[in-house]
Amino acid sequence: MSAPARLVPRSGAGIRERLARSAATADGVHMAASDVPGWLERVRRSGGTTVRRIPFAELDHWSFAPDTGDLRHRSGRFFTIEGLHVERPGTQWQQPIIVQPEIGILGILAKEFDGVLHFLMQAKMEPGNPNLVQLSPTVQATRSNYTKAHGGTAVKYLEHFVEPGRERVLTDVLQSEHGAWFYRKRNRNMIVETDGDVPADDAFRWLTLGQITQLLRRDNIVNMDARTVLASAPTAPAEPRALSSDSGLLAWFTAERARQDVRVRRMPLREVAGWQADEHAIGRADGRFFKVVAVSVEGAGREVAGWTQPIIEPVESGIVAFAHRVFDGVPHVLVHARVEGGFLDTAELAPTVQCAPANYPPSLPGPRPPFLDLMLDAPEDRIRYSAVHSEEGGRFLNAESRYLIVDTDEATTPAQPPPGFHWVTPGQLNWLAGHSRYVNVQARTLLAVLNTGTAGRTPRAA
Amino acid sequence: MSAPARLVPRSGAGIRERLARSAATADGVHMAASDVPGWLERVRRSGGTTVRRIPFAELDHWSFAPDTGDLRHRSGRFFTIEGLHVERPGTQWQQPIIVQPEIGILGILAKEFDGVLHFLMQAKMEPGNPNLVQLSPTVQATRSNYTKAHGGTAVKYLEHFVEPGRERVLTDVLQSEHGAWFYRKRNRNMIVETDGDVPADDAFRWLTLGQITQLLRRDNIVNMDARTVLASAPTAPAEPRALSSDSGLLAWFTAERARQDVRVRRMPLREVAGWQADEHAIGRADGRFFKVVAVSVEGAGREVAGWTQPIIEPVESGIVAFAHRVFDGVPHVLVHARVEGGFLDTAELAPTVQCAPANYPPSLPGPRPPFLDLMLDAPEDRIRYSAVHSEEGGRFLNAESRYLIVDTDEATTPAQPPPGFHWVTPGQLNWLAGHSRYVNVQARTLLAVLNTGTAGRTPRAA
Repeated sequence: MSAPARLVPRSGAGIRERLARSAATADGVHMAASDVPGWLERVRRSGGTTVRRIPFAELDHWSFAPDTGDLRHRSGRFFTIEGLHVERPGTQWQQPIIVQPEIGILGILAKEFDGVLHFLMQAKMEPGNPNLVQLSPTVQATRSNYTKAHGGTAVKYLEHFVEPGRERVLTDVLQSEHGAWFYRKRNRNMIVETDGDVPADDAFRWLTLGQITQLLRRDNIVNMDARTVLASAPTAPAEPRALSSDSGLLAWFTAERARQDVRVRRMPLREVAGWQADEHAIGRADGRFFKVVAVSVEGAGREVAGWTQPIIEPVESGIVAFAHRVFDGVPHVLVHARVEGGFLDTAELAPTVQCAPANYPPSLPGPRPPFLDLMLDAPEDRIRYSAVHSEEGGRFLNAESRYLIVDTDEATTPAQPPPGFHWVTPGQLNWLAGHSRYVNVQARTLLAVLNTGTAGRTPRAA
Repeated sequence: MSAPARLVPRSGAGIRERLARSAATADGVHMAASDVPGWLERVRRSGGTTVRRIPFAELDHWSFAPDTGDLRHRSGRFFTIEGLHVERPGTQWQQPIIVQPEIGILGILAKEFDGVLHFLMQAKMEPGNPNLVQLSPTVQATRSNYTKAHGGTAVKYLEHFVEPGRERVLTDVLQSEHGAWFYRKRNRNMIVETDGDVPADDAFRWLTLGQITQLLRRDNIVNMDARTVLASAPTAPAEPRALSSDSGLLAWFTAERARQDVRVRRMPLREVAGWQADEHAIGRADGRFFKVVAVSVEGAGREVAGWTQPIIEPVESGIVAFAHRVFDGVPHVLVHARVEGGFLDTAELAPTVQCAPANYPPSLPGPRPPFLDLMLDAPEDRIRYSAVHSEEGGRFLNAESRYLIVDTDEATTPAQPPPGFHWVTPGQLNWLAGHSRYVNVQARTLLAVLNTGTAGRTPRAA
């Protein structure tokens, strides 16, 4: 017996094409892309926020727990900074790590104007951004946010994501964040389309994907949360052919995950070996990697008037780069199955290179990260994409990296890459970013660039 | 510059069709399906294995750790039984749990005979199987197995899976196992096709998918490991239409995962509240759920001559059932986003009903599991599929459940199901089983049935 019911196409026909049309639209109905940086700067100035480093003792409502030394808010909410012990064959280490088990929402509201999808982007201040205000998703909400642990005002537009109702969910996927700094953190990456009449508040603008694409070429304009949401949407072309089939790619990645033996356990922050605390910072004795510090945010026009918080500060800026080659007419990038202690399951797909070069001085014994020097020494005419972006400004202070896509060749990056590396097409990476925990957050930034065609077919200098 | 290279179709064209041809082939080149149960029984008898319950004190090389009370092997390998504390809003519990962080291989070797894929299946003894010997994958190997922690002989055919070389990997995906009994366990589910000349050893037979399908209709013939591997292969038809699009299904599941707040931590077994140990068993004071017991395996023709081990014994047999409806000509089953304490990430897709009814006596306060009575009371003429299968016999003793697929209707299972439930097509479930941690192990058994057409279009009695 067959019941009558309204079936829909499984493929959700049309979303990819509509995103592509928006990506091809260089001018939106609301504001020119070239005016966005000035607008962000005006918002920054009118907000008048200042961020000041403070000693831990000046944190309000945050303190080190007497038993464990963990740094936590007295409400028990937001996040804690604890210790993590990571064991791998032949090596082990301990480090501070941010623990934030709640799942937040990074949501972009979409709407058609003149037949073209526009995205409601926010000029949002976050204390860790080097320039404070960047272009952000419509909504960045932790569960603490929307249950008002701040004691603050409601998050604007949140209702479209919490109860989408008749609206159309274009993307909703749990994505991991930095496994070196977060313990198993994940957020929902959402794009929701509305037909309703949604006025853009002062700090919001409707932009096309083409406009956001232009802004991705500039330093520190599009924030991390916006980049990861855009990478999660099905915007890359689905190439019919690649160096390996989709099932071959999955099989390679399964073998990579399975061969890694990573055992992690949380531990009291005060017992973490190799790290030392003073009044202002918790850092490594040898000065590598990152520090835990505290900031006071004053005069902010955010949900609350001002606040203090701990924040992670990388010691040096990073380099995040994809090697890029065109095989038989089809572009590919070289992914790395990378282990990070905070990942839920051993490895995720990372860019070819992802590190802070300062952590690997020539004096350090042992091999350098593969392909690092290739990227550091890339000649200008092989650089397809280059921009500085910072990581999430709510948790990371001045965490800047240079993001690169570099044309390489058989001599430096062979078609048969070394173990742990694999050539994939942008379409394959985008396909995997539609599921959780395949593509790490740094690779998603570069995927947003690849997806939207920001990295052109020819190198910049050509 | 475009480098010459051999590209392949991303879609891996042809695998689905070749699996379908094998599923449609009711007779293989090696042994009739109807002869398999007799063959398994002969292997059981010639092995002469007996399984005897023993007190914990008679375990060889296994003991309770003095500090934690955890049950572990003196080599540090195999698995441990520890404690788990699970917290959810409004409830919390503690329980013993198997911890086995190593990733094992469940692998089936495939080869074409007369143009039809056959699968090399093993008659394998496992102490927890009610009938000891069942039809198993070519290889079931923990890392301890193939690094010889048993001190035993090499695992036959393992080389095809560890170093596939020129062979063709049809499926390779990490799948979760029982989240109620295992802490974040996962295994590689592999099918590897060979062109080579592979003789079938005594305890092995080449069977078509159609033959395995016939055997899935019988009780306790096809073991759990074989069922989950078969479910992971792309064997279900890819219906073009469904009640929700694929992206709509993912969005629903993301929201389900995100709304669950599950915090787990491992704890010493000896401190687990509500459980008590005597010489022979660790069980709950109220007798519900399961016990930890010990067995001695004697006279086995396995890798070693005999051994002792701890094993989990469910208190009562279970029921695992999918509600099944046909909407506008397209079959659907009703999945449940189910939380289990041992899952890596809050929830996975489970059958409509999955429980041991004895754990929910009428005297128990609170609501009964949804749809349980619907399945218990299903009239014979609505039962599309019914068979008893046991769970993995290496870890679970007599863990039998009745697996059902039952035709239901709008009155009992509406097209708009209650929160936490969603209608999906077999093709959608099979698509998700191509990735990790979407489809739980019980749902994968029923998916193997759906995939291979074992559950016919018309109910049994029709």
